[in-house]
Amino acid sequence: MSFASIVKMFVPKDRIFYSLFEEVSATLMNMSEVFIKAVNENDPTARHLHLKSLEDLEHKNDETTHRIFVELGQNFITPFDREDIHYLATSLDDIADYLWGASKRVVIYDITDVDQTLREFGDIIIKSVYALNTCIHGMRDLKDLRAITNACVLINSLENDGDDLLDKSMMELYSKPNISAVEISKKKDLYQMLETVTDKCEDAANVIESIIIKYA
Amino acid sequence: MSFASIVKMFVPKDRIFYSLFEEVSATLMNMSEVFIKAVNENDPTARHLHLKSLEDLEHKNDETTHRIFVELGQNFITPFDREDIHYLATSLDDIADYLWGASKRVVIYDITDVDQTLREFGDIIIKSVYALNTCIHGMRDLKDLRAITNACVLINSLENDGDDLLDKSMMELYSKPNISAVEISKKKDLYQMLETVTDKCEDAANVIESIIIKYA
Amino acid sequence: MSFASIVKMFVPKDRIFYSLFEEVSATLMNMSEVFIKAVNENDPTARHLHLKSLEDLEHKNDETTHRIFVELGQNFITPFDREDIHYLATSLDDIADYLWGASKRVVIYDITDVDQTLREFGDIIIKSVYALNTCIHGMRDLKDLRAITNACVLINSLENDGDDLLDKSMMELYSKPNISAVEISKKKDLYQMLETVTDKCEDAANVIESIIIKYA
Repeated sequence: MSFASIVKMFVPKDRIFYSLFEEVSATLMNMSEVFIKAVNENDPTARHLHLKSLEDLEHKNDETTHRIFVELGQNFITPFDREDIHYLATSLDDIADYLWGASKRVVIYDITDVDQTLREFGDIIIKSVYALNTCIHGMRDLKDLRAITNACVLINSLENDGDDLLDKSMMELYSKPNISAVEISKKKDLYQMLETVTDKCEDAANVIESIIIKYA
Repeated sequence: MSFASIVKMFVPKDRIFYSLFEEVSATLMNMSEVFIKAVNENDPTARHLHLKSLEDLEHKNDETTHRIFVELGQNFITPFDREDIHYLATSLDDIADYLWGASKRVVIYDITDVDQTLREFGDIIIKSVYALNTCIHGMRDLKDLRAITNACVLINSLENDGDDLLDKSMMELYSKPNISAVEISKKKDLYQMLETVTDKCEDAANVIESIIIKYA
Repeated sequence: MSFASIVKMFVPKDRIFYSLFEEVSATLMNMSEVFIKAVNENDPTARHLHLKSLEDLEHKNDETTHRIFVELGQNFITPFDREDIHYLATSLDDIADYLWGASKRVVIYDITDVDQTLREFGDIIIKSVYALNTCIHGMRDLKDLRAITNACVLINSLENDGDDLLDKSMMELYSKPNISAVEISKKKDLYQMLETVTDKCEDAANVIESIIIKYA
């Protein structure tokens, strides 16, 4: 067996990580779109159907993430550091978990007034997830580094927007005249989980940025 | 000095990790049993004694965890990846921390009605911790891989049960007619910490699963 | 090119990590001092000015942390394990984030009664951050191991004090006769974030301790 054929044997296994990360990214974009639909839907029954459909997407994403970890354990050769693959997979999985967690709470807490803050978070999240998709597709060949770097910068700036939105909405919540402590507690949970989604997008972007510094 | 004797010199040092992880596992089983006793005890004084005794077990566990980190720093040869040992020790330590944290809050928040939810969490946690014990003992020789894998699958499924229990109990809590916001806030803290215990069991099981994929 | 000159070429790059960590440490000491001033200031306007000035320090720290990650990606040779540098930088950055997060909440939640608990947390935090500074400066030559170890032990003990202070203040908060659930919720957030600052100091001390075990 020639050295070249041995190398070749590894190549397809190595490339599988790109496909799996792209699959995760597609699911995250899908989840963000469904979330946006849900928080723009005024009919509670239709809204709950959207939110419930996020559960299937989250389960689908769990399976893809699990496959990344299995491949990581079995593959001797990986396209970049094992720790980076592990950390990127974990951050992306956290995005799905927290987005589903927040959506579930709209139902569990019986929140009927989907407010402007939820829609603004939806807007920040979908922009972050689409920018992440640019990064993830860009990692395949690392040709357009500027596009990846710009997307990372955008995700970091969207995370700041998420922070500011949380601050602003908490300030509004606590200063509402007739709001009950229970209502505050429910909304606060929801807003904090959505803000965590933007944190996890930033975590993923930071891993991708560090991979680029090492390999490009 | 022969090569064999050099190898031998390392072997006992290497094996120490198994003993230390088994010690941690024994303490976690002990803590879960005491927690179950506490939440089934109707007499508040007896209950507080059980809960307080968890503090000593948590301190004992801190010491064993610290010894794992010291050994990790001193040993050149480890039975599996350093990162895996580090992450497994951290997850197991988190189980003890959150279980003790929740128990402490029963006392601090002066919770007198130990409810059915606490008992159900106790049940999920003791099952998870016993399954983890199967995994940890199985890592010594990696002979019965099926037993380890089954235990990991069980722990993942118990973590889902923990999620569902948290959702159900939060829904009940928020819909109770005469409950105060303060009461909700106390119980919510408690339930969330117990749910985190099951998350940390899953983290530990995931590390063990990835070790098995690599070495078995 | 001689071997010695190649080695020399790497040395200055390698040493940059010490300078950057010392810069982070100086900013953390500065932030703790400003926080102490703020929670001892009775005039709300002067207090808010102190708290706002923490924002600039936090941004400055973000930039230094980012430089550590860029250097980590570019440098082939590092003074200690890459994972340790990564984890230390992250823990130190978390200290700044949570201290700024807590300070911001004093303003956002419109907390006018800066209480004794806030001052006690300030006291624990400044002691932890100064002890961390001893550790970080000691890492340059690893000459005075006893001083580093003692500082690590102190940080661990201060983290326990932080835990106890949180427990005590939560117990007091929940047993106050005329306090509203909203008031409890605001103060609880604040205390928990300050307790997390001490956790992150302990995380940083634990990394430094493990570096010492490996290299000293």
